[in-house]
Amino acid sequence: VIIYLKKETPENIIEDILGNIRQGGIDAFYIEPYNLIISHKFHNKEIFQAHPYVENQQLLDTSYKLSSREFKSNNTTINIKGVEIGNNHFNMIAGPCAIENEEQIFGTAEYLNQLDVKFIRGGAYKPRTSPYTFRGLGIEGLKLIRAAADKYDLRVVTELIDLKLLDEIVEYSDIIQIGSRNQSNFYLLSELGKINKPVLLKRGMQSKVEEWLLAADYILSGGNEKLILCERGIRSFDPSSRNLMDIGVIPLIKSLSHLPIFADPSHGTGDAKFVHSMSLSSIAAGANGLMIEVHPNPTKSVSDSKQALGFSDFKTLLNSVEDLAKYFGKSCDFEISDRNISLSQ
Amino acid sequence: VIIYLKKETPENIIEDILGNIRQGGIDAFYIEPYNLIISHKFHNKEIFQAHPYVENQQLLDTSYKLSSREFKSNNTTINIKGVEIGNNHFNMIAGPCAIENEEQIFGTAEYLNQLDVKFIRGGAYKPRTSPYTFRGLGIEGLKLIRAAADKYDLRVVTELIDLKLLDEIVEYSDIIQIGSRNQSNFYLLSELGKINKPVLLKRGMQSKVEEWLLAADYILSGGNEKLILCERGIRSFDPSSRNLMDIGVIPLIKSLSHLPIFADPSHGTGDAKFVHSMSLSSIAAGANGLMIEVHPNPTKSVSDSKQALGFSDFKTLLNSVEDLAKYFGKSCDFEISDRNISLSQ
Amino acid sequence: VIIYLKKETPENIIEDILGNIRQGGIDAFYIEPYNLIISHKFHNKEIFQAHPYVENQQLLDTSYKLSSREFKSNNTTINIKGVEIGNNHFNMIAGPCAIENEEQIFGTAEYLNQLDVKFIRGGAYKPRTSPYTFRGLGIEGLKLIRAAADKYDLRVVTELIDLKLLDEIVEYSDIIQIGSRNQSNFYLLSELGKINKPVLLKRGMQSKVEEWLLAADYILSGGNEKLILCERGIRSFDPSSRNLMDIGVIPLIKSLSHLPIFADPSHGTGDAKFVHSMSLSSIAAGANGLMIEVHPNPTKSVSDSKQALGFSDFKTLLNSVEDLAKYFGKSCDFEISDRNISLSQ
Amino acid sequence: VIIYLKKETPENIIEDILGNIRQGGIDAFYIEPYNLIISHKFHNKEIFQAHPYVENQQLLDTSYKLSSREFKSNNTTINIKGVEIGNNHFNMIAGPCAIENEEQIFGTAEYLNQLDVKFIRGGAYKPRTSPYTFRGLGIEGLKLIRAAADKYDLRVVTELIDLKLLDEIVEYSDIIQIGSRNQSNFYLLSELGKINKPVLLKRGMQSKVEEWLLAADYILSGGNEKLILCERGIRSFDPSSRNLMDIGVIPLIKSLSHLPIFADPSHGTGDAKFVHSMSLSSIAAGANGLMIEVHPNPTKSVSDSKQALGFSDFKTLLNSVEDLAKYFGKSCDFEISDRNISLSQ
Repeated sequence: VIIYLKKETPENIIEDILGNIRQGGIDAFYIEPYNLIISHKFHNKEIFQAHPYVENQQLLDTSYKLSSREFKSNNTTINIKGVEIGNNHFNMIAGPCAIENEEQIFGTAEYLNQLDVKFIRGGAYKPRTSPYTFRGLGIEGLKLIRAAADKYDLRVVTELIDLKLLDEIVEYSDIIQIGSRNQSNFYLLSELGKINKPVLLKRGMQSKVEEWLLAADYILSGGNEKLILCERGIRSFDPSSRNLMDIGVIPLIKSLSHLPIFADPSHGTGDAKFVHSMSLSSIAAGANGLMIEVHPNPTKSVSDSKQALGFSDFKTLLNSVEDLAKYFGKSCDFEISDRNISLSQ
Repeated sequence: VIIYLKKETPENIIEDILGNIRQGGIDAFYIEPYNLIISHKFHNKEIFQAHPYVENQQLLDTSYKLSSREFKSNNTTINIKGVEIGNNHFNMIAGPCAIENEEQIFGTAEYLNQLDVKFIRGGAYKPRTSPYTFRGLGIEGLKLIRAAADKYDLRVVTELIDLKLLDEIVEYSDIIQIGSRNQSNFYLLSELGKINKPVLLKRGMQSKVEEWLLAADYILSGGNEKLILCERGIRSFDPSSRNLMDIGVIPLIKSLSHLPIFADPSHGTGDAKFVHSMSLSSIAAGANGLMIEVHPNPTKSVSDSKQALGFSDFKTLLNSVEDLAKYFGKSCDFEISDRNISLSQ
Repeated sequence: VIIYLKKETPENIIEDILGNIRQGGIDAFYIEPYNLIISHKFHNKEIFQAHPYVENQQLLDTSYKLSSREFKSNNTTINIKGVEIGNNHFNMIAGPCAIENEEQIFGTAEYLNQLDVKFIRGGAYKPRTSPYTFRGLGIEGLKLIRAAADKYDLRVVTELIDLKLLDEIVEYSDIIQIGSRNQSNFYLLSELGKINKPVLLKRGMQSKVEEWLLAADYILSGGNEKLILCERGIRSFDPSSRNLMDIGVIPLIKSLSHLPIFADPSHGTGDAKFVHSMSLSSIAAGANGLMIEVHPNPTKSVSDSKQALGFSDFKTLLNSVEDLAKYFGKSCDFEISDRNISLSQ
Repeated sequence: VIIYLKKETPENIIEDILGNIRQGGIDAFYIEPYNLIISHKFHNKEIFQAHPYVENQQLLDTSYKLSSREFKSNNTTINIKGVEIGNNHFNMIAGPCAIENEEQIFGTAEYLNQLDVKFIRGGAYKPRTSPYTFRGLGIEGLKLIRAAADKYDLRVVTELIDLKLLDEIVEYSDIIQIGSRNQSNFYLLSELGKINKPVLLKRGMQSKVEEWLLAADYILSGGNEKLILCERGIRSFDPSSRNLMDIGVIPLIKSLSHLPIFADPSHGTGDAKFVHSMSLSSIAAGANGLMIEVHPNPTKSVSDSKQALGFSDFKTLLNSVEDLAKYFGKSCDFEISDRNISLSQ
């Protein structure tokens, strides 16, 4: 059950109600930001029906709650330094897998800015399957991407891989990315609920939709409502592609949840030559934005080189994306009449 | 290796070459329709280099061959009673999961005809997981769908579930559908190579792309080149949808093979409310056509009722599909200026 | 519901009851061998409560029925030419993947006989993923394995890949094997219900347990109760082994069903070096028997050579298997005091 | 390549070699505890062939290295307060999923001690899919399990869910458990390489064997060699069990790696009624130990109640396990002649 409390409910009353439920050996939680009590196994609405501090009650019909449409029917929108995300807006996040050096990240930032892109991505700490591969520049990488973004009016999206690095990441980023391997890192998710910084939560490569939305609830139940979901490919039995991009999860999430849903076709397919078609496919399925790997020289990229687009291919993609997003009535944050621009590099 | 033979190669020479390879304990096959010898484990081009009847040789770099782009670079097109499939054409196949009775199938056929749809689907023999459910009307069903199609100028797509029924199905259909559960029925596939009737080969719900294209090679190597592939959803770990529609397989197949690739979002999602978005998504990914379940009264459908569209929803879908397919430069076989038609029923 | 009818129920009464249920648009089936009516969606026990020909009624709580322990609590046993299968018996089926020639199959049969093995396996028609590989000797192979089995007092287990071959396979075999790719071939399964020959039904490589038991119900509902299940590995995301052998399905099947359950570690692992440990593991999990690939010269095997054991390794395995099966209180059909025998070859 | 350096190699020479490789844009890592340089993409043995400080070189044939049998052929053994793990030893770890209160954990510890079990498990911080369920007692739980273990001569196995808790967990535990959801938390794994405390690394529920062994390499490459692997069930398409226990991974790991491999049939099956058969099956497959959930009153357990054994069932299991482990020639750390003991509770 969810018990919505009245505004003025005193703390001792809250403790009373929690204790009342718990004495039956059942867990109950007070969710402070929403002033409600939630208990998964307690299915009785009668006990607190007439309680003077109970505003309303609702039986739980889905395991996740705060991320569901039942809890909130209107689409969530998020404003990040003047750029709107969610609902009818369409956004593009682009940049290299890993921040490698000043030339690479400033060159990319300058190019993105000329194409009117508003968000740059790049990892300073990389979760790599093998310990014998490049793990990122660390704090130096964060400083580089921040400086590049500030110079070229971009917003920074970068991944947090461990709570120990939270302060660093909060300082240098505008959106904190939680990668596939951390989608079930519940301790980390709880802490993200307590901060005031947008989070982009990628789907775990083995996560059921219900588990993904429960992970979202970890963040939302702490009070942080600036949350974006992002599909990035799941694991399948077929080795013919690196990941299997679950395009069907896009309309499914939109029917179940009010949160914005992005798509990452670079990881989703693992192959640059399918990024264009899967980007368009994601838009047709209803995605609110894309996250694309771009690199000045993909073949020299230190990680995931196979899936990054070069500048020229990215420009072509961006033109197609803008056109199709508008076809579906979206308002793009990257709108420019002529992308046949010349660059200093 | 593939050994392409000269046109006039006598049979005893073919036997000689086969015997030569086989004496090393290695299999070799003569593919009569293409006048070539194929051997998977024989990787030596030198032995027959100077043979007077050998036109050309090619080392095998993929396990499937006849369905690959290396074998044939141009897109395959198929003409079915005046309607073109493949390449730049876009087709719609629609109809009920199972043929139930005269009223249902004639009503559907009339409606499809008024919307300018050219292909009707409907099963007379249904592969059902449980023996305690409806298995189809059998031969009576075939007669009904044929009569309805003939009256309303439609082409019939219906499923073959066992070789014993091949003659029946060939007689009453225009395209033979091979369902997901028979995609690896190699004995059946071999026989389909010997007939002159188009085949729509659905992907096995657990099939790797390589296995699917090898299944295609079973049919092609018999000489039947009228082959269409169709993605219909695969099995995943997530119970949140009935199947997981692998949209990414569409551009993948298009890069690997010359065959037309259709999408079936009705089975792919298992839920009518996601058919619209996944249809558009399939088009954006490059599909050559769609197969959609339509029923005069979905809630009364004897099978798969959850995934069938009613007439009105189908008309809305068809308008959207035509518009988006044209956006991507496709030529639709269903082109009508005004679908706000009135129907006799 | 299941409606158990009284013995003397006249046909027109049966039709009445079926019609009664069906007029509500719900399917109902008369299962002649058990004299009962089964209807999946009809959940009303009251309507026929007082019917003079209704013996008893039961609401369906699992989708499969005849293969379930609720339907039959005692373990099914099957007698094949004097050898008992099921319950407390433990059986060994061994032989090559494919029948290749007289020397191979007679040599194997002689060896198996000397080791006191009672069942020989060998395929005459092979379901192969690629059309460019060996597909079996066909009818000549069947004749060879039958002759070898008759000479060395063995029972033949061989695969049926298409209904067209049913008469052949019935004539030459003692147990009809249905392979993984045909586990969902419902038309074929239905026909197997009508014959009087034991069937070994392998699990589909993508089949849920419920689907496997429903496939069993297809055979059982036709009246053929001589049915053995066999786990042979399923498909997973991990390419580190050819298949993933689901050992856990063995105790699961034993708790849900009365049917004997065998294990095939040769296909289950796809690697001869793991056959020994996975055989013992299957016994410890409760398997009723094993199916093992044995070949006089595995490296020369025309198919699946990587997973076949040579004679010497098989003898070692058999000794271990007999010892462990007895440890668990099983009665082995292969019991011999001294396997350090000399062979004519 | 792996470049094994001579003992006295000066730091500037190491830097020289690293720089030499890296100038080609290729990563190279010095693994200090083993005094070697590893580079995944550098496949040239000639450049440093004659280098005065290079002892030996080896081309990399597997992506993981330190955990492989090629790197170390002898089985790793670990001594934990006088109890040996690995090689021919067989160990039992038992206890509740979560530490709930003093009575529960002391009662369990007393019982385990009387059965001669040497390791107690119990979680103080629980990774829970839903934020609305019990997340553990935290530091109070750690103190309770430590006190109970000290009183009853047990070693503590408890899970680390975030680096922030590392000092706490190191202080109160004898083996640090890394759960399925953290198997790919590479930052955490790196830190575990730097401490001197045994680690039990569960397999990720979606991890390929190669990924699991690479995760092991993260820990080993830091210098911590006290590492145990543990299979706990993976994700599959079949909802008939909570997880799919991959018994086949046990002999596979034993052939690829020198590390001890345990099995956790409680999570592996998710159902107490299959724990007995899957425990025996794990032993027959070659496991070095088991981890079993035991609770004084399973139905009152706050988490995972369905999979915990009660005391009486656990005693029955322990007797069977000891008997079968000895059958396979293992030396059990729990050896007692008579378990028909009476307990104070």
